[in-house]
Amino acid sequence: MIQKILIANRGEIALRIVRACRELGIKTLAVYSEADVQSLHVQLADEAICIGGPRSSDSYLRTDRIISAAEIADVDAIHPGYGFLSENAKFAEQCESCNIKFIGPKSKTISMMGDKAVAKSTVLKAGVPTVPGSDGPVASETEAVKIARKIGYPVIIKAVAGGGGRGMRIAHNDVSFGKEYHSARNEAEKAFGNGDVYIEKYIANPRHIEFQILADSHGKTLHLGERDCSVQRRHQKLVEESPSPFLTPDLRKKMGKAAIRAATAAGYENAGTIEFLVDSKGKFYFIEMNTRIQVEHPVTEEVTGVDLIKEQIRIANGEKLDFDQSDIKFKRHAIECRINAEDPARNFIPSPGTIGLYYAPGGHGVRVDSHAYSGYQIPTHYDSMIGKLICYGRDRKTALERSYRALSEYIIRGIKTTIPLHKAIMSDPVFIEGKATTGYMEEFMNRMPPNLFTN
Amino acid sequence: MIQKILIANRGEIALRIVRACRELGIKTLAVYSEADVQSLHVQLADEAICIGGPRSSDSYLRTDRIISAAEIADVDAIHPGYGFLSENAKFAEQCESCNIKFIGPKSKTISMMGDKAVAKSTVLKAGVPTVPGSDGPVASETEAVKIARKIGYPVIIKAVAGGGGRGMRIAHNDVSFGKEYHSARNEAEKAFGNGDVYIEKYIANPRHIEFQILADSHGKTLHLGERDCSVQRRHQKLVEESPSPFLTPDLRKKMGKAAIRAATAAGYENAGTIEFLVDSKGKFYFIEMNTRIQVEHPVTEEVTGVDLIKEQIRIANGEKLDFDQSDIKFKRHAIECRINAEDPARNFIPSPGTIGLYYAPGGHGVRVDSHAYSGYQIPTHYDSMIGKLICYGRDRKTALERSYRALSEYIIRGIKTTIPLHKAIMSDPVFIEGKATTGYMEEFMNRMPPNLFTN
Repeated sequence: MIQKILIANRGEIALRIVRACRELGIKTLAVYSEADVQSLHVQLADEAICIGGPRSSDSYLRTDRIISAAEIADVDAIHPGYGFLSENAKFAEQCESCNIKFIGPKSKTISMMGDKAVAKSTVLKAGVPTVPGSDGPVASETEAVKIARKIGYPVIIKAVAGGGGRGMRIAHNDVSFGKEYHSARNEAEKAFGNGDVYIEKYIANPRHIEFQILADSHGKTLHLGERDCSVQRRHQKLVEESPSPFLTPDLRKKMGKAAIRAATAAGYENAGTIEFLVDSKGKFYFIEMNTRIQVEHPVTEEVTGVDLIKEQIRIANGEKLDFDQSDIKFKRHAIECRINAEDPARNFIPSPGTIGLYYAPGGHGVRVDSHAYSGYQIPTHYDSMIGKLICYGRDRKTALERSYRALSEYIIRGIKTTIPLHKAIMSDPVFIEGKATTGYMEEFMNRMPPNLFTN
Repeated sequence: MIQKILIANRGEIALRIVRACRELGIKTLAVYSEADVQSLHVQLADEAICIGGPRSSDSYLRTDRIISAAEIADVDAIHPGYGFLSENAKFAEQCESCNIKFIGPKSKTISMMGDKAVAKSTVLKAGVPTVPGSDGPVASETEAVKIARKIGYPVIIKAVAGGGGRGMRIAHNDVSFGKEYHSARNEAEKAFGNGDVYIEKYIANPRHIEFQILADSHGKTLHLGERDCSVQRRHQKLVEESPSPFLTPDLRKKMGKAAIRAATAAGYENAGTIEFLVDSKGKFYFIEMNTRIQVEHPVTEEVTGVDLIKEQIRIANGEKLDFDQSDIKFKRHAIECRINAEDPARNFIPSPGTIGLYYAPGGHGVRVDSHAYSGYQIPTHYDSMIGKLICYGRDRKTALERSYRALSEYIIRGIKTTIPLHKAIMSDPVFIEGKATTGYMEEFMNRMPPNLFTN
């Protein structure tokens, strides 16, 4: 039985994991960088060890120091959160070989699904549709152009090791292909140390819809419905909701089954997400699997009532999922807005600094996951997300109205945030009507006067 | 259609009503005393009018000024919250005659159910069991003693106009009866301007279990399950939960039906609560009806998903309840802890003052209803409740663990609160096993060293 967990992360997700552990009576060890001394998760964990300087490469990515901390503090398991080491197969393997439970899938599953080309071929064999494209990484520009012509423009060029939109380019014809191909390779090389890219048919303005999976180590694999994450800016999600306003019960059933087939084909264990693109006709394509908990997991929790972090820990503990697919109901609606310390009126420039007064909304149907508080200094070294607002209610209309109400209540003095942007989205007819595709944000930003987002 | 609502209250419930109105797109008018200028509900309402000095009798109880404010600001309706004018039939009547909707039952229903003796005989005729006792107020001490002997000691002496434990005394035999009778009369005279009392059989260590009712103006009356409010100190509720750990599905059904019969007999409209005592054998007795929203309404909201304040407004608007009894499910569990600015280590002495740093817990399954914030000055003129923590989850165990976790996260600097007391209750085996009756708190306080509750 797991008695103590090292949390190899920071910010709101580290706090989220501390909370789950406290409820389960499991001790926590926070590891933190010098920039995160005053972070809430450090204050609330049972123990805390500083593992290095502010830069991630000096702390949150230092597998050696994290494993040392785990051994010194005698933990049974490590929760990697999202980002950082969460999809690092080598780290998972190191944990396994040190006899520390890595709270996530087996390292070989992470490897397999982390290689986008292998992932695609794996699920395709299991009968899950994927986007037409190259069979793995392309060997040369010449081969790449040939494939692009064969599947037809527009095509998207993607880093094999990619994620978060980096190493991703769209080409509309032979003329632009060369330039985009080289850009993608260079960016991938810089970001991931691996310049390999593959080619896919580009689906114009699809919806980004992902399915939450839970799989225990006894062969039970369930899905917990979808999250519609179509509202993205430069492939960074801004708003997520469940259920998707686009899916019919029929399509949900079909895609849910496909998601389970994909996870099963990967021999998946623990919580994971199957991401799909869905075109305007409801045709869906597997794009990738995220082999970790996701930022937007709370929308699923509020709709289904299942605590995903606790389930992750229980699964790592070898326990069986104690509910079945038929127990999962989708009778509520939840929307998450990511609160980032960025200035939406000035092209989303990061806005670090010290928060003066911090007041978060509350009341019925409002959940706040945040490590911020009055007097908190936002470090400049990490991503700009300072919290997540999740509002839920009996239907989408209620969740929308509640989101707008809660956003209006926030007081965050001293920095700029994405709150005014979210208020505009929550009251925008296109979003309200459920018509947002991945093209929405660009169209929306062009349509809105930027001073509307002034904090 | 209601366009603008005057909120004739303060503190967390005023904020709760502002939130519901914002979500419904209804404008709000806050009326406030000089002591509440910096209150959150005043900041967040669309308009605000100061109606007098800090004392309730100079402001929140001044019906003339409130009606004037309503007329000046041209509101359609008044929400009275709880306490203050919420069960004042004359005020409801004034609203009716000024053509302002009083968000609550008709004034004649308030009168009828406000007179405890009339309320008892009304529900008794509808087949709802009541505690054996005098048929209305007793005329004299001689008559009172006769009745006490007839129903058998112990008996309880209660003010006809009573509430909140005032004007309430227990007598165990003829010897003590006279003293207690006169104490009750004196206290009732002072508190309510009406010294009339009635006599009832005293049920030893019962559970206090109440049913939430919603009734529209089209004849539909539903119950939303029960709240177990047995954890009380001097008849003041401290912890409330739903479902009750004591009720079987069978008893819930029986009591729910009785609650609906009671409400129907009263010609009830809007949200109300039927309070029962339940003895150790599951025998239940109607004690009173609260003809208003209650402090503890959020536990019902979190279990059922129904927004009670919105339903109150919809009903006042003449709308039909758009769900049926069979739609109400009790699949989650919710617990509320009242956070009072009191020192539980020093006999609950009020602890007003200025809150330095305020940090409220968050995350999955945690709801906070509070008007407090960093820098908030708690006025000395009103009750000491500064917030409510409502934690919920898939079962009682989860709700308990989550409550303890959330209580541990609170930071409220500068004042004493009941938080350490709640942590002790949430980890007390008697409470955890669901064995708390109305005698619990006294027994618990005697058993615990008071310094355990030191903030």
